[in-house]
Amino acid sequence: MICDKICFMLDTIQTLKGFRDFIGQQAREKSWLIDKIKSTFQLFGFEPLETPTLEYDALLSGKYGDEADKLIYKFEDNGGRKVALRYDQTVPTARVVAQYRNEIIFPYKRYQIQPVWRAEKPQKGRFREFTQCDADIIGSFSPLADAEILAIYASVYINLGIKSIQIKLNDRPSLIQMIRDAGIPEETIKTVILTIDKLDKKSELEVIEELVEKGLEDSHARTLLAGFTTAKMPENLQKIVNLAVQLGIPEKTFVYSPALARGLDYYTGMIFEGIIPEYPVGSVGGGGRYDNLIKDLVGVDMPAVGFGIGFDRTLEASQQLGLIPLEINKSSVLVTIFSPELIPTSLSTVAELHKHAIRTELFSDFSKKLDQQLKYANAKNIPWVIIIGPDEQSHNKVQLKNMQTREQSIISIDEVIQKIQG
Amino acid sequence: MICDKICFMLDTIQTLKGFRDFIGQQAREKSWLIDKIKSTFQLFGFEPLETPTLEYDALLSGKYGDEADKLIYKFEDNGGRKVALRYDQTVPTARVVAQYRNEIIFPYKRYQIQPVWRAEKPQKGRFREFTQCDADIIGSFSPLADAEILAIYASVYINLGIKSIQIKLNDRPSLIQMIRDAGIPEETIKTVILTIDKLDKKSELEVIEELVEKGLEDSHARTLLAGFTTAKMPENLQKIVNLAVQLGIPEKTFVYSPALARGLDYYTGMIFEGIIPEYPVGSVGGGGRYDNLIKDLVGVDMPAVGFGIGFDRTLEASQQLGLIPLEINKSSVLVTIFSPELIPTSLSTVAELHKHAIRTELFSDFSKKLDQQLKYANAKNIPWVIIIGPDEQSHNKVQLKNMQTREQSIISIDEVIQKIQG
Repeated sequence: MICDKICFMLDTIQTLKGFRDFIGQQAREKSWLIDKIKSTFQLFGFEPLETPTLEYDALLSGKYGDEADKLIYKFEDNGGRKVALRYDQTVPTARVVAQYRNEIIFPYKRYQIQPVWRAEKPQKGRFREFTQCDADIIGSFSPLADAEILAIYASVYINLGIKSIQIKLNDRPSLIQMIRDAGIPEETIKTVILTIDKLDKKSELEVIEELVEKGLEDSHARTLLAGFTTAKMPENLQKIVNLAVQLGIPEKTFVYSPALARGLDYYTGMIFEGIIPEYPVGSVGGGGRYDNLIKDLVGVDMPAVGFGIGFDRTLEASQQLGLIPLEINKSSVLVTIFSPELIPTSLSTVAELHKHAIRTELFSDFSKKLDQQLKYANAKNIPWVIIIGPDEQSHNKVQLKNMQTREQSIISIDEVIQKIQG
Repeated sequence: MICDKICFMLDTIQTLKGFRDFIGQQAREKSWLIDKIKSTFQLFGFEPLETPTLEYDALLSGKYGDEADKLIYKFEDNGGRKVALRYDQTVPTARVVAQYRNEIIFPYKRYQIQPVWRAEKPQKGRFREFTQCDADIIGSFSPLADAEILAIYASVYINLGIKSIQIKLNDRPSLIQMIRDAGIPEETIKTVILTIDKLDKKSELEVIEELVEKGLEDSHARTLLAGFTTAKMPENLQKIVNLAVQLGIPEKTFVYSPALARGLDYYTGMIFEGIIPEYPVGSVGGGGRYDNLIKDLVGVDMPAVGFGIGFDRTLEASQQLGLIPLEINKSSVLVTIFSPELIPTSLSTVAELHKHAIRTELFSDFSKKLDQQLKYANAKNIPWVIIIGPDEQSHNKVQLKNMQTREQSIISIDEVIQKIQG
């Protein structure tokens, strides 16, 4: 009966490749992480920002590089406007800073947690729609702003329960200076940085080989790599770290990584990446200072420093490390319906539990037998079930069943409330 | 200096017509409402659902009627797939129900709060991107499900502080029967319903005129309208209301409205609309039972009942009625920087306040003078400011300034915490 219509519809009854439905527990866990991150951002006094899903394509195209441009979802709307779906949150934020520059109070500390869309080849762990999660301070050149950004990034993880968070950090101008000092010609610096960026995935020898392939002299490449092993943290970076430590972040969180490059060439100062030792999949986000980018994007001269949390990886880490409470925002109780005559008692029990802010589900169908109602509670992992039969009703009590231990007790509604609220 | 670049960029430095940025307080208020609504949905044991922004166009087009079809944002993606932006949440939910019908536990109680996109002519209060906010029970024919839907809808408003919420309700089959009983020909019923739906905006005479224009006999039109004034609540509707009252909703909330029609012709049973008497702008959402829609959409036979909250109107009502706490998730304190030597003390004060979960902002720039820092706190409406000069530091105290009363006191950090936590 179901199939004949469903079958010819099957091509549309599916999620687009690279897109995801978040159902029940998946959506709850995603919300849990967003709420946790937001509360840390708010603790530091950062303000939320939401920008529209669609922007003028002219704002986005040409801002991310040629390769990225191909991945922007864009189209012409009914009014003939060329529009594009949000590809990242930095460009829309730059637009906001320019558009509302007379109303915004600087330094502008904002966070933004919204989906973005990229028409990438779908593959494991890579999606066409995913959540970005950024915090930035716009309008301050001060190392205090850099330190605060490091402190918030670390606090997000510490507040999630990931105290082991490591922040690898480097100073982009110092890295470029080291490359120059190794005798590497100016015009190869950009490509050299891209190769150096692979040092955490490839061996030193492989990296030297790749550098030589790119036209470097073998001795220059070796000098450069040797330099990384003896480099000391530059003074300006040490100052930022000290300030972050004064803001309450343990010193051991910070690891100077002189070869850390971060691909994007818009960084102008400190750069950093987060690593979770117990979840060794690479970085879980990062950021840095980018003092020229907003001017390049929208013509308003504004220093900035910030980061993005790797949202999907951080969610997976939280799941794997068992940090997400199992019962989060789930029903605590199912109130069953014993028989049509006893509906009023069941309903007033639901109302009473709701008054005490206990998440209580009513079994919304009195045509189903009690064992079917218990199966429903089981399937949904609802920890407690209330049954009110004629006996219980006449004694003004209810039967409370613990679905895990199978224990049952016949008690008053006040005792139920005490028991469930623990 | 700013202008020469900004000016030639001006065409892209703007939000698309019909789209909105939510900045600072606007975003906070939107989140506040979403959180409040979610907590009521969760109190009743409803599960979250999130579906992708993009779906196959074949799923959406043809499902909303010819006029609506023109308003769907659609385009061809890089892979030649015809895709469309979410236009409502009912069709994607129907897809989810069909796609995961072997995993979902029925009755499936889900809520969904996401943006949708409609290429409507932008006008006051109408946007091309706006939030929809739905709760539905899928898979139950029971009047208990209808009653629960009424109870949740009312509870959303009661929990917001809008105890005056009125629910106008009607039974769609009874309305059709009344139209038939008035001697109105079967083939005009649909158009008659559309005219009747205007009874709350137009006078009886105007409605009679419009009915006569549509070909009805004057006497039939008058009989019908007279019938509305004497109609009694049908038994099945009374039963649903009684159950909702047993679920804790005051009886006075429900107002039988025999002429309530709700335009959409997919409703098959109870229909309702919410009205806030102190915010008389029309309905703030509504819903009803739609037992055939999911089958029509995706071929799976599933009864359903649910509603949508009018999100933007409910937000505006909450603002106008003063229900949104002013200080919601805003910084409580700004810690200023007195001088470069005193930075460590200011930073450790920030860290200490963060430990006590007090939302504390650091002034992230030590090149700015104290009065500029105070101006910043003023502009951002931060209620407390902490100043730590050499005197305060030497006595291990801080100066706490109440920005509203201008009172200042020199106290210990523990006293600050007590004072702010109230």
